[in-house]
Amino acid sequence: MAVCEILCVGTELLLGDILNTNARFLSKELALMGISVLRQTTVGDNMQRLCAAFNEAASRSDIVIACGGLGPTADDITKEALAQVLGLRLQKHEPTARAIEQYFQRRGVPMPRTNLKQALVPEGADVFENRNGSAPGIGVKDAGKTYVLLPGPPRELEPMFRDRVSAYLASYSDCVIISHAVKTFGIGESLMAEKVADLLELENPTVAPYAKDAEAYLRVTARAASRQEAERLCAPVIHEIRRRLGSKVYGVDTENLQRRVVELLQTKGLKVAFAESCTGGYAAKRITDIPGSSAVFECGIVAYANAVKSRLLGVKPGTLKRFGAVSTQTAVEMAQGVLRISEADIGVGITGIAGPQSDTGGKPAGLCCIALAAKGAAARVETIETGRANDREYNRFAASSKAMDMIRLYLEAAE
Amino acid sequence: MAVCEILCVGTELLLGDILNTNARFLSKELALMGISVLRQTTVGDNMQRLCAAFNEAASRSDIVIACGGLGPTADDITKEALAQVLGLRLQKHEPTARAIEQYFQRRGVPMPRTNLKQALVPEGADVFENRNGSAPGIGVKDAGKTYVLLPGPPRELEPMFRDRVSAYLASYSDCVIISHAVKTFGIGESLMAEKVADLLELENPTVAPYAKDAEAYLRVTARAASRQEAERLCAPVIHEIRRRLGSKVYGVDTENLQRRVVELLQTKGLKVAFAESCTGGYAAKRITDIPGSSAVFECGIVAYANAVKSRLLGVKPGTLKRFGAVSTQTAVEMAQGVLRISEADIGVGITGIAGPQSDTGGKPAGLCCIALAAKGAAARVETIETGRANDREYNRFAASSKAMDMIRLYLEAAE
Repeated sequence: MAVCEILCVGTELLLGDILNTNARFLSKELALMGISVLRQTTVGDNMQRLCAAFNEAASRSDIVIACGGLGPTADDITKEALAQVLGLRLQKHEPTARAIEQYFQRRGVPMPRTNLKQALVPEGADVFENRNGSAPGIGVKDAGKTYVLLPGPPRELEPMFRDRVSAYLASYSDCVIISHAVKTFGIGESLMAEKVADLLELENPTVAPYAKDAEAYLRVTARAASRQEAERLCAPVIHEIRRRLGSKVYGVDTENLQRRVVELLQTKGLKVAFAESCTGGYAAKRITDIPGSSAVFECGIVAYANAVKSRLLGVKPGTLKRFGAVSTQTAVEMAQGVLRISEADIGVGITGIAGPQSDTGGKPAGLCCIALAAKGAAARVETIETGRANDREYNRFAASSKAMDMIRLYLEAAE
Repeated sequence: MAVCEILCVGTELLLGDILNTNARFLSKELALMGISVLRQTTVGDNMQRLCAAFNEAASRSDIVIACGGLGPTADDITKEALAQVLGLRLQKHEPTARAIEQYFQRRGVPMPRTNLKQALVPEGADVFENRNGSAPGIGVKDAGKTYVLLPGPPRELEPMFRDRVSAYLASYSDCVIISHAVKTFGIGESLMAEKVADLLELENPTVAPYAKDAEAYLRVTARAASRQEAERLCAPVIHEIRRRLGSKVYGVDTENLQRRVVELLQTKGLKVAFAESCTGGYAAKRITDIPGSSAVFECGIVAYANAVKSRLLGVKPGTLKRFGAVSTQTAVEMAQGVLRISEADIGVGITGIAGPQSDTGGKPAGLCCIALAAKGAAARVETIETGRANDREYNRFAASSKAMDMIRLYLEAAE
């Protein structure tokens, strides 16, 4: 099994200014390729220490992947360090120089001369185009070892690894690992794990429970000589999990709830509209995260103040007065209101207390009422309480997730 | 200045199963104590590699802090590795053995016998009680070096470090480090760095450029015997940066643009409303991320389809037809429309192409027009192009940032 070390470069990592997500991303991707990561090392932007780290890593492993330090400024020296360690000259890579010039032209800003430093690559290197920034990635094969240099920003590094570097390293991969995530909503991690306790003991595929972003999911991972064989191992286990968890499962490998909702709406040719109070546009933002959502998303109204709820959505002042802004009654009138003023088929109303301050009426932060109104159907409404009064982001996320899940269950029931 | 290395132990880190938050936490705490972290290393639960990592780290630094691998199971071997490296015997620490027994008694579950392994410590070690779990922390001073072993779970490690270990390492702390972030918007990292190129050469305080989330910032870090003295070193440099970058600077240590916008609106007693197309609620979501934003945020309209732009916001069909939905003219009518239907003082219209698909009219993804309308003032409008056609999240984030920045500049100009 091929052995790899990951070398992260950046004083900001050693100062604790940023979290090292690159080490995790690369480790995970390499594990899926069957390449073993034996060590992760982080050093600062210091030539002597960086060269020492390259030499040590190469003495122990087949592959060294370094990330960070490919920027245009003088303290970006990862490329220079590798060139020094391997005794290679840096030379201008013309396609990269042109790409960098065009990148600045498109943005309509003059290119600082220092940016051309990013077009220098070690002689004989393979160059990986950067579609999301200006620093290209670099691959060097030298004395039986492979070195890969990647830009530090995750939004540049991650697509570059997936699109180019994984293929570049394919010859080191000696088995196939396949992994699927069975995603659920509306069931806690421990209850989910209890329902599949016996499956968690399996060895191939393995089944492991995780919780993330107000959801729980099970990761099913198989290892085999071929992709086909690994899939054949996963299939019956995924089927059994679906059988036990029922409608709590919203998808397998589905990116997130809003993706599932957009797919269901597309299939049925329906449109949704949101009336949001505490989530402040979060539900609309999440739906419109999905490319192509314009076909299924009609409009959103963010109505924070009571006056706006009445004026734009037609919520009755009497309802607000009698039951309060955070009530199932108000949620239903918001959902019905946005349905009335739009041409959507489904209207969703969300009203709650995001925190950290709680309501004057004694309702706790984390409480939220969510209603769904649809043409020709009775309105439905649910209330959640997260129990995390101080976590405004979590409360807003969980409330918008619950709204997505109500749309999903409504559409799935109609199937 | 004392030099430290952090050694994280755990195969789950090398597999990418978990994010290494301990390395960041410890680095940050140590930086504040004036202890320099030169390297972070992660290795798996393997005796030979762990011993090698201890030896290497000790050869380069005064302090080695290892975390993880203190649990009760057979693959927890960090303590055993350190004892082997230093030639120390492990012996039972009675107060810890009693504490572990009591810990299980309190939880009302029988103690597995393997847990007594956690009461073994190297002879002569200092022991740090664990108030949030069963594995104690360990300190060993040997041949002029200090070794600290901490449990892996962050909720055990973090309080233990703050309550006990920081005092244990106090003799190494000979200074205070103060750091400030000068945050900018509307200037790229390299152009910003060019304008302060001479300041980047300073030694105390140091000035370093960073880019994150469509913004660039400068970190000014001073080291001195006292906090006061360190602040005195930073002040003139921050003043000089502000002078050179002018209105590009939106704050020092300000959390983000929306925080600055909410503060400005609060100070002036004004309210804002958004009419969003491509950002789909992202601007409203970001403003309402800030607790207390209800006092300054009037409402948001997410109008994706042209029909909705006309019906809810009063955008003229002729404008949409002649100039297109993504045009400065439409952006201005959206801003004016939301101002008209709300009781806000400032209306902002955002219309663009989020990507990854580009417009049928040949306009590129990443193009966005943003308009600001205010009572009694001429509307202003700007167009940005990110040059990142494929990055929907970035394009939407950058467009909503630009909207925040236009509000900020409008309010600052009125000061």
